[in-house]
Amino acid sequence: MKLRPTFKQENLKIIPLGGCNEIGKNMTVLEYQNDIIIVDCGLMFPQDEMLGIDFVIPDITYLEQNKNKIRGILITHGHEDHIGGLPYILPKISPPLYATKLTKGLIEVKLSEFSLRKPQINTIRAGDVLNLGNFKIEFFHVTHSIPDCVGLAIYTPVGLVVHTADFKFDYTPVNEKPTDFDRLAEYGQQNVLVALSDSTNVEVEGYTPSEKTLGQTFNNIFENAEGRIIVTSFASLINRIQQVVNAAVRYHRKVAISGRSMLNNINIAMKMGYLAIPRDTLIDIKEIKKYPDNKIAILCTGSQGEEMSALVRMASGDHKQIKIKKGDTVVISASPIPGNERSISNTINDLFKEGANVIYGKKVDIHVSGHASQEELKMMLNLLAPKFFIPVHGEYRHLHLHGELAKSVGIKKENIIIAEDGNVLEFGPNFGQKTTKKVPASYVMVDGLGVGDVGNIVLRDRHVMAKDGIFVVIMTIDKATGKMITSPDIISRGFVYMRESEDLIRRTREEVKNSLEVRNGQYPANWTFIKNKIRDDISEFLYNQTKRRPMVLPVIIEV
Amino acid sequence: MKLRPTFKQENLKIIPLGGCNEIGKNMTVLEYQNDIIIVDCGLMFPQDEMLGIDFVIPDITYLEQNKNKIRGILITHGHEDHIGGLPYILPKISPPLYATKLTKGLIEVKLSEFSLRKPQINTIRAGDVLNLGNFKIEFFHVTHSIPDCVGLAIYTPVGLVVHTADFKFDYTPVNEKPTDFDRLAEYGQQNVLVALSDSTNVEVEGYTPSEKTLGQTFNNIFENAEGRIIVTSFASLINRIQQVVNAAVRYHRKVAISGRSMLNNINIAMKMGYLAIPRDTLIDIKEIKKYPDNKIAILCTGSQGEEMSALVRMASGDHKQIKIKKGDTVVISASPIPGNERSISNTINDLFKEGANVIYGKKVDIHVSGHASQEELKMMLNLLAPKFFIPVHGEYRHLHLHGELAKSVGIKKENIIIAEDGNVLEFGPNFGQKTTKKVPASYVMVDGLGVGDVGNIVLRDRHVMAKDGIFVVIMTIDKATGKMITSPDIISRGFVYMRESEDLIRRTREEVKNSLEVRNGQYPANWTFIKNKIRDDISEFLYNQTKRRPMVLPVIIEV
Repeated sequence: MKLRPTFKQENLKIIPLGGCNEIGKNMTVLEYQNDIIIVDCGLMFPQDEMLGIDFVIPDITYLEQNKNKIRGILITHGHEDHIGGLPYILPKISPPLYATKLTKGLIEVKLSEFSLRKPQINTIRAGDVLNLGNFKIEFFHVTHSIPDCVGLAIYTPVGLVVHTADFKFDYTPVNEKPTDFDRLAEYGQQNVLVALSDSTNVEVEGYTPSEKTLGQTFNNIFENAEGRIIVTSFASLINRIQQVVNAAVRYHRKVAISGRSMLNNINIAMKMGYLAIPRDTLIDIKEIKKYPDNKIAILCTGSQGEEMSALVRMASGDHKQIKIKKGDTVVISASPIPGNERSISNTINDLFKEGANVIYGKKVDIHVSGHASQEELKMMLNLLAPKFFIPVHGEYRHLHLHGELAKSVGIKKENIIIAEDGNVLEFGPNFGQKTTKKVPASYVMVDGLGVGDVGNIVLRDRHVMAKDGIFVVIMTIDKATGKMITSPDIISRGFVYMRESEDLIRRTREEVKNSLEVRNGQYPANWTFIKNKIRDDISEFLYNQTKRRPMVLPVIIEV
Repeated sequence: MKLRPTFKQENLKIIPLGGCNEIGKNMTVLEYQNDIIIVDCGLMFPQDEMLGIDFVIPDITYLEQNKNKIRGILITHGHEDHIGGLPYILPKISPPLYATKLTKGLIEVKLSEFSLRKPQINTIRAGDVLNLGNFKIEFFHVTHSIPDCVGLAIYTPVGLVVHTADFKFDYTPVNEKPTDFDRLAEYGQQNVLVALSDSTNVEVEGYTPSEKTLGQTFNNIFENAEGRIIVTSFASLINRIQQVVNAAVRYHRKVAISGRSMLNNINIAMKMGYLAIPRDTLIDIKEIKKYPDNKIAILCTGSQGEEMSALVRMASGDHKQIKIKKGDTVVISASPIPGNERSISNTINDLFKEGANVIYGKKVDIHVSGHASQEELKMMLNLLAPKFFIPVHGEYRHLHLHGELAKSVGIKKENIIIAEDGNVLEFGPNFGQKTTKKVPASYVMVDGLGVGDVGNIVLRDRHVMAKDGIFVVIMTIDKATGKMITSPDIISRGFVYMRESEDLIRRTREEVKNSLEVRNGQYPANWTFIKNKIRDDISEFLYNQTKRRPMVLPVIIEV
């Protein structure tokens, strides 16, 4: 029988606040007695139904309640889904941060856009050991789609916890070492109590190809292109950028950069030694006209078809320096983040229309993932051989399938814990379980300056208006008699084209009068009742006339 | 030098009204002197930015202007993007329709949902020859993802035009013959002047697998599943349904059906002999509890994660008869239509959460496309060897890439015509070109009962409200003095949660007063000017306070 101890002081708690049942806003809390450490603090891009929302961050209610216990935030790497929540969360809890050099640089750039007190960010390196309260943390190197990514071996009083971070096993990475297999194997020897591992690519069979495989692809493209070459990728994919630069150097092209995040990231990466561009290769985007087309390569933002990005502006003819023309080769070295398929498609269509030759994922393998596929995930589980396993960084199906993989490599079914954000998991030296306890873990939505102030009611209203618009009925009522003074005023947007709907509006006014008349004579009136009645009657009337359901807002002005 | 004759009576015109630069609402017009024939009449599902729109149909302005010339509408097959426009277009032009037996049945079901005069639908069969004015049309059989699909060989006074319809070359189709290669080769011998061919899968290398390859996959699933098997697919994929039924029969399971379109299509297909289900295999969905789980297979709608579909209701626990449980196997035998990725993902997550084993595209090859891949498209071009080539049924990149394929098999570059909807193409016995002439070909949007009444203004308003909501400011003004009688009334939806924004609302009221005061004393006032000023001032104020831009609507009530 499974043990179900109540919370004991001597147990370790692991609480995912983000990344379990979703892709994005990764954040995991480890708590032992009076010590809490936090792994990552990301943001999530809004889902389709979150109309008007900029992004979603983790709910840190529990951390605010236990502020004095927090010993530090450990950041595994510099992607938005691992650092993007920091500007919103640091004003509320401000423990020291620990990150590698490049990650620290990226966090600083991010925070500089907010007027915040500068936080303390401690630079760590793979191999470093850090003591935070009851926790001893060792950082180990992993390969991913950004340099300087680390996983965490966390020694706790109940046993060793290993968090893989986002990773792949790249045996021939570009500009960095492979994932530290040796150290992972050593942890495995030490009895890992709990492993948490990246589930993003669990649906993909086999192995994720090495970053280096793209080197030859770029060489081929650069060898054959006759005009300009324009490459877009994720701005954080520094090693991809390195490979494009290498091809440019090899084929004697200058490199220009367009797009703010691409410029920022390249600058930081160069300054910190993660990217090498020969001095005479890099030119300003304004200078490209000084060179023949076949001497130019451009690195730009826009791999996701983002509205204001450099590539989208080029495609739509709105870019200041670059107008797409026949002979240009555009390379989209990225895969679509779910939800962006449509905007990427549109961008590709526009580029072809302008005469470019576009090289993209469906035609050529021009991108590799930064996440481990099935065989690599199995290898990680084999190396660590953990007693308990928590799949993280995935939607429910990813976590579930990662659990199935774990079973297939011999981890006991009852030791695989599929958690949701907010679940409190509890571990002792010889047991582990998902408890019935939950801490708050709702979506905290950021919209403009508002953090968490947009909830379901506001979103529901946006949905109704997005679908069928709004219909405001203003009735001016004589206070003394309770009768309407003039014909009701009607304002509508997003429902029908008003100028061509005069007849419908006239008939709706009649409906309002009829609807109101029923209550005439009863004064002082029950305005709430009357407003509800008008709303129902007019909604029904408009639906019958149009089969649309605008939001009907009756307003009563008493004068 | 290329000839550029002006429109001559003796030239053939080909005018795409849908399907060129888009996937969906396929419609092509052929005109010669006083005769017009139309190929297909489809609808398109709305793109993301078309908020609240049900679907889009072709613009038939040109056809209405030339009503008396129209000799017939030829329908190639029964998919929505080929027949879905009919209910909206038949009331405006009502020529005779020509379709194969199954296609006719599907059109009749579709039209029965509208109160329309029954159109004349003539049944044709592959091999039939039809004379419509100056056109002689021969129908030839092609394989696709619905039975009874035909392509068209259209003999015109200037030469032979071949329209492939949607097709694939399936050498081992289920329940029907392969595409009629022989006839295609014969057309090739007769000198094809113009070919129009399906571009949907031009990005896919190699050959599309045969429908039959899935038979073994289903057998394996049926052999190993221990509980119920629930299969969803496109309701029109009759031959897929046949394969599921075959597996059910083989493994002694009863088949029940859930979802209206699945029920409708299966009924028609059975009635017309396109689908064979043994009498004792089919049971009512209400009877499934009478059998053990391992004797049950369910065919249902929901392969695209559609909100009210059977599978989505099962996944969310809202289905009357079926509650998903541990042991159920759910098979999603379909690929996502672009834009549906998210809702399908959510459905899969929900099904796993309820305990089902879900078999879907990313894990197993459980769907094959109905459209030809690159090698098949090349084969079609080789068989027909047309002088001129018009790629159709694709977005710009598909048409462009199909043009490149055509070049690679030897069609002259200058004879490949990439057209947009509305372009008038002109052909003589020895020439062909895209002219500068265009006929109207806008998106006609259907929203509820309205056809074409929602345009850019309404959509733009919906967008603004979807993003940041609405903010109505009502000022009641004394007619005699031009002064506000009371504090302005404010109504807002989808902007901020009003109950928690009392302070913001109070300060906005002050802003309105200040903004209005500037104009005080000048009476009679210029209300348009004042309203614009209030709108600008309040928009600015709210943006500064919140970084959101709700639609601000100032209303002035004079009493």
